[in-house]
Amino acid sequence: MANVAVVLAGCGVYDGAEINEAVLTLLSLEQQGASYQCFAPDKEQMHVINHLTGEPVPGESRNVLVEAARIARGNIKPVTEASAADFDALLVPGGFGAAKNLSNFAVAGADMEVDPDFLALARGFHAASKPIGLICIAPVMSAAICGEGAACTIGNDADTAAAITAMGARHLECPVSEARVDEANKLVTTPAYMLAGSVSEAYSGISDCVREVLALA
Amino acid sequence: MANVAVVLAGCGVYDGAEINEAVLTLLSLEQQGASYQCFAPDKEQMHVINHLTGEPVPGESRNVLVEAARIARGNIKPVTEASAADFDALLVPGGFGAAKNLSNFAVAGADMEVDPDFLALARGFHAASKPIGLICIAPVMSAAICGEGAACTIGNDADTAAAITAMGARHLECPVSEARVDEANKLVTTPAYMLAGSVSEAYSGISDCVREVLALA
Repeated sequence: MANVAVVLAGCGVYDGAEINEAVLTLLSLEQQGASYQCFAPDKEQMHVINHLTGEPVPGESRNVLVEAARIARGNIKPVTEASAADFDALLVPGGFGAAKNLSNFAVAGADMEVDPDFLALARGFHAASKPIGLICIAPVMSAAICGEGAACTIGNDADTAAAITAMGARHLECPVSEARVDEANKLVTTPAYMLAGSVSEAYSGISDCVREVLALA
Repeated sequence: MANVAVVLAGCGVYDGAEINEAVLTLLSLEQQGASYQCFAPDKEQMHVINHLTGEPVPGESRNVLVEAARIARGNIKPVTEASAADFDALLVPGGFGAAKNLSNFAVAGADMEVDPDFLALARGFHAASKPIGLICIAPVMSAAICGEGAACTIGNDADTAAAITAMGARHLECPVSEARVDEANKLVTTPAYMLAGSVSEAYSGISDCVREVLALA
């Protein structure tokens, strides 16, 4: 049975992990016979977004790990406690948390920096030739993790695809129901809510992403 | 196509809607051909729980509707805008939010009161002979909604089952992978995380609950 590290970036599409993507990742792992452990960075979120209005909440602060614990029902650890040596694969759901808390892509674009603890973990998987699955907007970190030439999906947003190219990665077209595999890097990516219009659409691509990751594990 | 009102009680198992149950309810509705609209009470949560420690957070306040919007990706309305006339069925995922925000069962037990706006909505479905699905701990509201004699699941917690009996309902044994139907009341209930040990176990019972609800719609 493959054992997979899942990194969550908070709890909520606009400032954390996309909730549907996170739950569907865990469901897919279980359905396909894998075990998992959730992790998250123990640090403050970039900001807090009111998900009803879409506006930032002035003065409010939330911790990424504490909020991600809502998805994991408390069964989650700091990302600094994760090691590639202990797992067969890494999976990262999307949501703005991947572009605000795991990296700062949402504000810095192609000049982004990746959270150093998460980057060290992800590079550990890559160095050990263990598969990495990045979902939705998380593939913007492909070049930072796997190096120049990494091939990944992003949906069909031209600006995001251009930023991916500027960072040295290669953008792959992919429908919402599928995932794409960069065999050389053991990197699997899928658009999910970069394209999905419903929970079941997101589920189809995430399920495929998990399948390809486990096939490489 | 059946159109279903889904009522969420926040975002997180310990102070709101159980996130997995909520997402799996929406997934099951889509997979079984139904459409839905999410609603939540526009009021403050009973309290905020740190889901990493399980402890209340002193002085912090969050709004049920605003937090539930995290699960619904912003596509959610105040429960006061829902009417039984506009929908074919009602579904309520569990989590402590059902026992803290939709009712106060978590602190008052059998002496609980149900949120008046939610109660009016749910009784509207019952009065119109439209099916109601209650998941996890939400069935503690069965007698309040459907009247004495309503039959419902709760898992196997003896104290909760006794409270259900004290409120005039009847407790039904049910494994995690199934749901039970009170045909006379068109009430469908399933234990979900009252028994589930994994996301996929919760999915099996919730999927069955949705199937029975739609069959009655």
